[in-house]
Amino acid sequence: AQEFDFSDNSHRRYNPLTDSWVLVSPHRAKRPWLGQQEAAYKPNSPAYDPKCYLCPGNNRATGGQNPEYESTYIFPNDYAAVKIEQPPLLQNDSDKDNLKNRLFKVQSVRGNCFVICFSPKHNLTIPQMKESDLVNIINAWQNLNNDLAKEARENHKPFKYLQIFENKGTAMGCSNLHPHGQAWCLESIPSEVSQELKSFGKYKHEHKTDLFADYVKLELEEKRRLVLENESFIVVVPYWAIWPFETMIVSKKKISSVSQFDHTMKKELASILKQLTIKYDNLFETSFPYSMGIHQAPLNAAGDELHNSWFHMHFYPPLLRSATVRKFLVGFELLGEPQRDLTPEQAAEKLRNLDGKTHYLDKL
Amino acid sequence: AQEFDFSDNSHRRYNPLTDSWVLVSPHRAKRPWLGQQEAAYKPNSPAYDPKCYLCPGNNRATGGQNPEYESTYIFPNDYAAVKIEQPPLLQNDSDKDNLKNRLFKVQSVRGNCFVICFSPKHNLTIPQMKESDLVNIINAWQNLNNDLAKEARENHKPFKYLQIFENKGTAMGCSNLHPHGQAWCLESIPSEVSQELKSFGKYKHEHKTDLFADYVKLELEEKRRLVLENESFIVVVPYWAIWPFETMIVSKKKISSVSQFDHTMKKELASILKQLTIKYDNLFETSFPYSMGIHQAPLNAAGDELHNSWFHMHFYPPLLRSATVRKFLVGFELLGEPQRDLTPEQAAEKLRNLDGKTHYLDKL
Ligand SMILES: O=P(O)(O)O[C@H]1O[C@H](CO)[C@@H](O)[C@H](O)[C@H]1O
Ligand SMILES: O=P(O)(O)O[C@H]1O[C@H](CO)[C@@H](O)[C@H](O)[C@H]1O
Repeated sequence: AQEFDFSDNSHRRYNPLTDSWVLVSPHRAKRPWLGQQEAAYKPNSPAYDPKCYLCPGNNRATGGQNPEYESTYIFPNDYAAVKIEQPPLLQNDSDKDNLKNRLFKVQSVRGNCFVICFSPKHNLTIPQMKESDLVNIINAWQNLNNDLAKEARENHKPFKYLQIFENKGTAMGCSNLHPHGQAWCLESIPSEVSQELKSFGKYKHEHKTDLFADYVKLELEEKRRLVLENESFIVVVPYWAIWPFETMIVSKKKISSVSQFDHTMKKELASILKQLTIKYDNLFETSFPYSMGIHQAPLNAAGDELHNSWFHMHFYPPLLRSATVRKFLVGFELLGEPQRDLTPEQAAEKLRNLDGKTHYLDKL
Repeated sequence: AQEFDFSDNSHRRYNPLTDSWVLVSPHRAKRPWLGQQEAAYKPNSPAYDPKCYLCPGNNRATGGQNPEYESTYIFPNDYAAVKIEQPPLLQNDSDKDNLKNRLFKVQSVRGNCFVICFSPKHNLTIPQMKESDLVNIINAWQNLNNDLAKEARENHKPFKYLQIFENKGTAMGCSNLHPHGQAWCLESIPSEVSQELKSFGKYKHEHKTDLFADYVKLELEEKRRLVLENESFIVVVPYWAIWPFETMIVSKKKISSVSQFDHTMKKELASILKQLTIKYDNLFETSFPYSMGIHQAPLNAAGDELHNSWFHMHFYPPLLRSATVRKFLVGFELLGEPQRDLTPEQAAEKLRNLDGKTHYLDKL
């Protein structure tokens, strides 16, 4: 009898962070693609663009002007999804049996949103920046995290969780190619993060250890999904990855948030970030689009919230086969469950074998 | 003091079907858009395309040939995500304490995938088809559901759940504009569906009634999110909608699956499908992209699985402001929680006020 072949036969894998499943159908990678093509990347934009609202010295959409910044630059989002002040939401929860209270649950959400320019240069991206510049970005994340935590502690500002992220490339809804990320700070813990915290808590309760302590150990033993490793971090394609070349950067030791980073950790995160994104760009010789972000402890966390948190970053890149052909997570994925066309092990092998030192544009 | 304004202040709403939250930031709709534009729709393709692998009489990608079909036409997907036969997946679960068993959970998934051509005409879409043609599609769904259930019962085929869906438009990953949907039949219940079944069961346990019985009643009372209604169905923008113009078609009475439809229900679903999709096309005067699909009882359901199921359809359309500007569910949405820029009530009002009888192309 034939044996089950994980690189050809369909199977589902369980994601213990989100308590959900992904359908893996490796043989579907052979399917021809006749659908939408992403715009090809043209690496020829100028270092300064007079029309860019993020370049130093330029005017912003709502009237302000950027300073002549020389490193990273943070400012409040002109179109913030949440605001620090708004009228209180008074809820009628007197009648517990009321249908509306039962089915229309709602919470007010205050907070603040920030834009973080990674560099004054319009035409750089993370893989093209110097490691020391990347350390500056990490410093900006750390300072923002600390400042907001302090504002919450000392001035009762509605700041509970800081979601740091970057949308890179038009395919991921980025509307300005100037290198920048965002940070949305809310008074509630977002669903994805609170689901992870719940899973971490459950795991610890059941196994008396941290999920990520076990997971890092296992991936270092197996090595099949490992992409990069240094003293402080590993990069893996998670066993339960959804996006074709999805990765996770996980700290080897328990660090609950970017606030706890010392200088060595910052340098090691900068180094592994640079290597990973160089590999990404080299994969299809393009500026590789993705959404990425940090999952960490809530601001001023204590008790379980603090002890269950473990610093990690998720990278969700959409490209599947080439610079112009992406994976669409649509019909079956939205209505049924996420589905992928190559195995995480196949993706990890490709990424592992790519050059992580020299960017393809520097070889031309 | 000012009052909380749901059409301007940020809030989160709870989705009782998926047990998750969505962040609503209505004021963000004012944000200018400088990012990716979707291709504009050009309504001039021919009724027969000699290069289309779905047109009657043409050759398919893997060699077969389509018959000269005149109504709907179903065939097995040439690149199926699951197959009826594959080697068994033998799991080593002897050692319960083993790290691998704990963190790498996996299941084999068999099944079959089908393509359903809605019409022999290459250039039609649901809003442009006759109601009687739409009844043919519903008949095809019903027959497929019944046939697969029978195969499972009588021939032990690995068929447990039939996920019927349509990806419409290149923005939703559709690679062939010939009007067609898909149906993936798996031996496991997909995550989204099993989460809904869990929620329905919980609700019934707590409140001694069906979640959808209460929900339909409430939406018919409030009317603010109601888009369409006939004897058998309502169309609403759910209170917890994620996509800008997301809707749900819900049967007014408890019907567990398309297998239970009588002729009247088929006609009424056809009628409301046509009206909804005409409204969608009229909204931005384009062929409105979406992913849509049916949630219903598993095949051969009995007991709780049968009694907790309630036929409904989800429509997930990406367009936000115009035929070329979509909503991206990216960074914050993937890492934090889904976020929307207009309220469900605002979206429902727009859809309600649109013509649902005459398609914009028929007015030109
Ligand atoms: O099967 P198709 O139409 O070629 O492919 C499309 O629908 C599938 C099911 O939602 C997705 O997995 C694919 O990413 C999408 O491109
Ligand atoms: O804030 P931006 O960059 O204009 O907008 C982008 O990121 C946001 C946060 O992930 C998303 O809500 C938007 O849909 C996306 O276009």
